[in-house]
Amino acid sequence: MIQIEKYNIFERSINGPKPTKSNVKVDFIGTFSKDNKMVEVKGFYNGNGEYVVRFMPDDLGVWHYELKLNAKELITESGEFECIKQTGENHGPAVTNGMKFQYADGAKFIPFGTTIYAWIHQPKALIEKTIETLSKSPFNKVRMCVFPKSLFYNNNEPELFPFEKDKEGKWDVHQPNFEFWNHLETQVKALLDLGIEADLILFHPYDRWGFSKLGLHDNLTYLDYCVRRLAAYRNIWWSLANEYDTVFSINEEDWEVFGKFISSEDVYNHLLSNHNLTKVYDASKPWITHCSIQTNSFHKSKMYRDQYQKPVMIDECRYEGNIEHSWGNITAFEMVHRFWAVMVLGGYCTHGETYHRDDEVLWWAKGGELHGESVERIAFLKKIMHELEGEIQPDKDLYNMNPNEPKEKNENEIAFEKFLLTLDPVEFDTFRFGSITNFSGRHEDKYIIKYLGRERPCIINLELPDNSEEYRVEVIDIWDMTRETVVEKATGKQLLDLPGKEGIAVLATKVS
Amino acid sequence: MIQIEKYNIFERSINGPKPTKSNVKVDFIGTFSKDNKMVEVKGFYNGNGEYVVRFMPDDLGVWHYELKLNAKELITESGEFECIKQTGENHGPAVTNGMKFQYADGAKFIPFGTTIYAWIHQPKALIEKTIETLSKSPFNKVRMCVFPKSLFYNNNEPELFPFEKDKEGKWDVHQPNFEFWNHLETQVKALLDLGIEADLILFHPYDRWGFSKLGLHDNLTYLDYCVRRLAAYRNIWWSLANEYDTVFSINEEDWEVFGKFISSEDVYNHLLSNHNLTKVYDASKPWITHCSIQTNSFHKSKMYRDQYQKPVMIDECRYEGNIEHSWGNITAFEMVHRFWAVMVLGGYCTHGETYHRDDEVLWWAKGGELHGESVERIAFLKKIMHELEGEIQPDKDLYNMNPNEPKEKNENEIAFEKFLLTLDPVEFDTFRFGSITNFSGRHEDKYIIKYLGRERPCIINLELPDNSEEYRVEVIDIWDMTRETVVEKATGKQLLDLPGKEGIAVLATKVS
Repeated sequence: MIQIEKYNIFERSINGPKPTKSNVKVDFIGTFSKDNKMVEVKGFYNGNGEYVVRFMPDDLGVWHYELKLNAKELITESGEFECIKQTGENHGPAVTNGMKFQYADGAKFIPFGTTIYAWIHQPKALIEKTIETLSKSPFNKVRMCVFPKSLFYNNNEPELFPFEKDKEGKWDVHQPNFEFWNHLETQVKALLDLGIEADLILFHPYDRWGFSKLGLHDNLTYLDYCVRRLAAYRNIWWSLANEYDTVFSINEEDWEVFGKFISSEDVYNHLLSNHNLTKVYDASKPWITHCSIQTNSFHKSKMYRDQYQKPVMIDECRYEGNIEHSWGNITAFEMVHRFWAVMVLGGYCTHGETYHRDDEVLWWAKGGELHGESVERIAFLKKIMHELEGEIQPDKDLYNMNPNEPKEKNENEIAFEKFLLTLDPVEFDTFRFGSITNFSGRHEDKYIIKYLGRERPCIINLELPDNSEEYRVEVIDIWDMTRETVVEKATGKQLLDLPGKEGIAVLATKVS
Repeated sequence: MIQIEKYNIFERSINGPKPTKSNVKVDFIGTFSKDNKMVEVKGFYNGNGEYVVRFMPDDLGVWHYELKLNAKELITESGEFECIKQTGENHGPAVTNGMKFQYADGAKFIPFGTTIYAWIHQPKALIEKTIETLSKSPFNKVRMCVFPKSLFYNNNEPELFPFEKDKEGKWDVHQPNFEFWNHLETQVKALLDLGIEADLILFHPYDRWGFSKLGLHDNLTYLDYCVRRLAAYRNIWWSLANEYDTVFSINEEDWEVFGKFISSEDVYNHLLSNHNLTKVYDASKPWITHCSIQTNSFHKSKMYRDQYQKPVMIDECRYEGNIEHSWGNITAFEMVHRFWAVMVLGGYCTHGETYHRDDEVLWWAKGGELHGESVERIAFLKKIMHELEGEIQPDKDLYNMNPNEPKEKNENEIAFEKFLLTLDPVEFDTFRFGSITNFSGRHEDKYIIKYLGRERPCIINLELPDNSEEYRVEVIDIWDMTRETVVEKATGKQLLDLPGKEGIAVLATKVS
């Protein structure tokens, strides 16, 4: 019997007559059952009379399957395969658990993403270089577009497009360009082999070919094909858009339709989000699994957690680079600083790199090589985050308060809180978030982490948990990548000397 | 005939019987007249039977005066003095003119302030050191408190207090401590001699003696004495409070009463403001001459200009230093960066320095010596600002837009602007001000100044005014304090290579 690792793909092809109308809306269903579990999966057409169905089993044991291809005549096939235990780095798809991510099998997954929007649309040699660079990088998630990208530094024409054109020269979404989709899959698979999640961007506005203006029905057909072909890859995430709010041909109702469509068609319920430019997409919608936020106000990460009660991914907070555009010219230090700030606020941050090059090969869009200085520091941060026992629970910010909350407060504190309630929403927001310039969190009483950001005190009062436990206190330099134990066994309040420079974190870990 | 320079003080004393009830509310009036101008000024009691009146003439020529002291019996005196033209650095008091400041005689005055809250409450040697340091500094305004200050690093007891105590040990505001007031005046005069404005803070919350809780009537008596004694000093500014919103014993109505009181009693209409912690004090009130703002959101400076149509002084945007508190541990670079950003946004910025010292002598509170690295860069900026022909008119920010405004826009721009109108106020504010990370302004077509802040492009497209004039283009490094002319005669659009580091400004000046 065929053996398939849990979370890997069981794939079957059937040859049949070519579809007559649509190469997308083919009537090919795979039914997979085990015990009292049954999953129906739609297959897809791959050209040359080949119909393919893919299934990602999530349960150990023998699965029975039945395939039904209804093309002119009914073709069926049935059989069995055994789902065996996953091995090595295969922990299944990424899922959410409260405000954090993890792998489906429960293994730790802390996303450290990067952005390479149009890497699959580049020449073969460059794609290979990108894969090679990724293989040596700390990144385990890539934001990438299905459609090619047209923008400054993105002037080259891709070799392959996702659809064929009809007689009038218009894109025919019912005629997928199989070469393109095989190519896309090859790259998704290449990422999977590296343990990297493919945060697949389904729509975006940077377009000179017309893919951003297909219309509601064509968009749904396109999404249908995406889900049929790609959903079985465990490393797929669905990102409805990059900057949904600048894809002007798609309105609010359409995004809802698309989200619900994917959510219902994707039997694996892959992570699903929608990325903004201005207004954070409403992550309270039940089909949104996590926030995928573009913002320069990364210090609001915890606020979004509190608001949506879902994991918060700051998927764009500007890029390390030196191009003219504001979003693409922060320093490497600032990039690393933002990663630390966002993570201590209980969120996740995404990298991008935009160093000007005359050959226009910028990592953020095309991949290739990384030239910046943030990556190794992000790797340093990743190592620390992996060592922490339990995810970071960010501390409440100073002004996230409730004057009626029963807490010991003095007269002035009460008066001040009452005054704050008289501020209008923008004034309060400006004051509250203008005050959030250092960041602290903890996991129960296991550790306390304090990232001081661009503040650079030479001394702080570290308040350890009010228990009788001892803590090892380390001072971390996020740029120089050093960790120094400054107190072996600390308790209570601890006066700490610090280097007095930007980019310092303090980690106090309970001595076990 | 006595000759007094315009804007200097004409002072007369009369000896009379000691006041019987209040040493503040004395009935001593000086009437100063010239041509059809007549000014009535209240005098003050200075102890030992001495009644003093001070007058700052603002008109050249012979002034006639009559003094009337009504104490038990009426004592009068009359005479004349000649007001002669001011000389040297005497340009009169600072006044506002639209969104900028200037001296009363029209001379340029660009405030470069610093903060030394409690310097007059320190030992003599330290006060002298402060004066010496100021004399070598670029600063021409000092924020300073009348009342002593109690806070961390402010634990020493002052030698002098502004009032005597009554039999019950309570402060008696009707009994000024003359030694204190003479001391205060000596320091105001010392600043005047250095051409430095005294931005006198009348109330503040950092108090262990009870001065922040005197009550409405006592507060008014105190203010009465302040105005009688100090208003004739041309370098006096009235700052109602430091952090009015944390002086909990004074409510909104009281601030209004105090502001109106000073405004009506001060015949010279010195600059008058009120400084906040959280909510900017409503500068639309007619008696407020300018905004005196504490904020970490210094990039909102232009917004406050637009809102209040008065000069905007960011009187506190955190301090260069390394103490534990967020507001006192920014780097010197960040301090200089904030000065540049605020000024290119058409505002003014105030310095402070808080380097931890075991002897607790921190510049921000006590004065002494400056230890930081921002001061010489602020001097460099000051020199550049003085060379500019005309004050900076900040450019409109990208998202301060009106979709109905007649302007050539493409379909997408219109759609985007319409979308922005759907954002709630906080969302819009977050997006708009999150986007303001470089800063540009101009004065008509005389020059364009662009400060790139913490962005660090290696290349920019400089768009010069659409005229046929030529501009000299300089690249300024705000930290290294270099100015390099990179194009002698530029016109139209100019592609500029830049150093690709933080803290770069570009200045294009019309070649005359």
